[in-house]
Amino acid sequence: MTDETSQDLRAVEWTGEGLSLIDQTALPHRLDRIAVREVDQLVDAIVRLVVRGAPAIGAAGAYGVAIALLQGEREGWNRDQLLAAVARIREARPTAVNLAVCVDRVARFADQGLAAVLAEADAVVREDLRANHDMGVHGADWLLKRTALDRPLRILTHCNTGALATAGWGTALGVIRELHSRGLVELVHADETRPLLQGSRLTAWELAHDGIPHVIQADAAAAGTILRGEIDAAIVGADRIAANGDTANKVGTVGIALACAHAGIPFIVAAPTTTVDLATATGDAIHIEMRDEAEILNWSGLRTAPAASRGHNPAFDVTPGTLVTALVTERGVLEVSAGELPGDRLR
Amino acid sequence: MTDETSQDLRAVEWTGEGLSLIDQTALPHRLDRIAVREVDQLVDAIVRLVVRGAPAIGAAGAYGVAIALLQGEREGWNRDQLLAAVARIREARPTAVNLAVCVDRVARFADQGLAAVLAEADAVVREDLRANHDMGVHGADWLLKRTALDRPLRILTHCNTGALATAGWGTALGVIRELHSRGLVELVHADETRPLLQGSRLTAWELAHDGIPHVIQADAAAAGTILRGEIDAAIVGADRIAANGDTANKVGTVGIALACAHAGIPFIVAAPTTTVDLATATGDAIHIEMRDEAEILNWSGLRTAPAASRGHNPAFDVTPGTLVTALVTERGVLEVSAGELPGDRLR
Repeated sequence: MTDETSQDLRAVEWTGEGLSLIDQTALPHRLDRIAVREVDQLVDAIVRLVVRGAPAIGAAGAYGVAIALLQGEREGWNRDQLLAAVARIREARPTAVNLAVCVDRVARFADQGLAAVLAEADAVVREDLRANHDMGVHGADWLLKRTALDRPLRILTHCNTGALATAGWGTALGVIRELHSRGLVELVHADETRPLLQGSRLTAWELAHDGIPHVIQADAAAAGTILRGEIDAAIVGADRIAANGDTANKVGTVGIALACAHAGIPFIVAAPTTTVDLATATGDAIHIEMRDEAEILNWSGLRTAPAASRGHNPAFDVTPGTLVTALVTERGVLEVSAGELPGDRLR
Repeated sequence: MTDETSQDLRAVEWTGEGLSLIDQTALPHRLDRIAVREVDQLVDAIVRLVVRGAPAIGAAGAYGVAIALLQGEREGWNRDQLLAAVARIREARPTAVNLAVCVDRVARFADQGLAAVLAEADAVVREDLRANHDMGVHGADWLLKRTALDRPLRILTHCNTGALATAGWGTALGVIRELHSRGLVELVHADETRPLLQGSRLTAWELAHDGIPHVIQADAAAAGTILRGEIDAAIVGADRIAANGDTANKVGTVGIALACAHAGIPFIVAAPTTTVDLATATGDAIHIEMRDEAEILNWSGLRTAPAASRGHNPAFDVTPGTLVTALVTERGVLEVSAGELPGDRLR
């Protein structure tokens, strides 16, 4: 492990000649970086989840336009070849809307040359970083005021929403980092997050990296832990938020929200305003991605389930806005369950 | 796989000379049986979870007294040696109260010889089997009346409560088997049940064995599946039930109960009356076993979590009786959340 601090833990970094990506498939065992100088390499890295997390993929795609420009220069591509290469990056993972949005945003500068492209990609990263830091401050301030506890907090989180999933710092994990920077984290309960273990592989690695006290638990342990009074608040990220506050996030999130409501503790969603989709009225309209059953039926390529059994593998669930105590964005905090709906406040 | 039907799927079977145990560590890949003719073998089988599930361990312990008698005869044990051997079986797993209860019940007949011991062990198994079949009928009748749906049902279950965990047929899975025997199961959602995967390894194997349509899902998928309207009822087992209906069961159960309450579908606990502990007033008095963090941090001996991370591994959680729509026992159904408390009805 290098001695990078959380401030400079960057899953996606431009080196001047190409991208340097933390290989998230090698974590938590090794902190390897992969150098990417060709479009094929970048597409492969996105497909293989070397880089994952919607904002992190967006950042990689943004710099991907620069990689295409440089490769095209070396190999003498014409304009059509360049556009085809950019389109391949854009579509490496069709479900992550950030990827297409960021690639399109930067590609508009392709005709102005490398410097303009890099300036826009830098802006994408800078804005995401700033939003994350702002979310951290807003979320920590709100939570401390709300809980009014005169001691460090015990926080539950799910999946990975940290530096690895974003341009840096993190969304929900950014709030936790901010609390930790103020000396106000007693213990983080990180759900392991089956089937792909983003919690135990990635979140725990980030927490260990920053020296934040934490334990890893089975996802099924979350509700009991909350009901036994071992948690002061749960903080999670989001993949898409409807106008009424209904929130799609990694499968398992809604169970945490139900337990928080039952226990009377805050359930907090931290996400940039770009995650709020005002065109989607309610969670019913959010499409739930079904992933390959192999993720459930196998472990490291070995079958764990009976040969005759099938798997059911929804990647996300939808938490009703009525269960979202606070939505933390870079613009501030909306108390959604108390009636501050994104559709009213963020238009 | 043999062609045993569910009627004769017996995890614990007396052969005339000793015990034949299904090796549950080899499932779902192989249906092996282990022949046990010595006390050491039996203790090892219980410790290594070759046989698991409180009623199944109780049955194995009951016949264990006969194994000790036979071995003592072969090896010329005196009475103290025999009692010491019986005590070792009794204490092979200290947390499973059924083991001690069943061993003690049968050991009272040791002085009357092998035939009396076997008759009492047979009675233990026969009573558990009958209780399970009765639970199946009571539970199925109640559920069909309650849901009043004119089609086969979509059931969610958690952990393994089937023939493998009992003397046969099963508790919660016995209710599902009864529904299936009436042609009234559309699909079973079996939670994989981390960390030890009793759901995907054992429950799915039993369902496949009986040809009951099923899918395996991550535990974290349960709440979302229920809230999306994909489930008509959840049926689980229990490890201990307090007088007020608070129910300790495999970790993850209370999250399912919360989701059922939110969705307005029945949450059903199926367990024999021996599981009801009237001396325990409420769930607050139920001790939650904390198991080895290695179960969370490793997979098949390989570390999946960062070296610096610790695990939090409660084996059970407690579902408030207020969330238990129905408690199904061999004596009938109590509508606990509607006020039919075990402490009032089962004394």
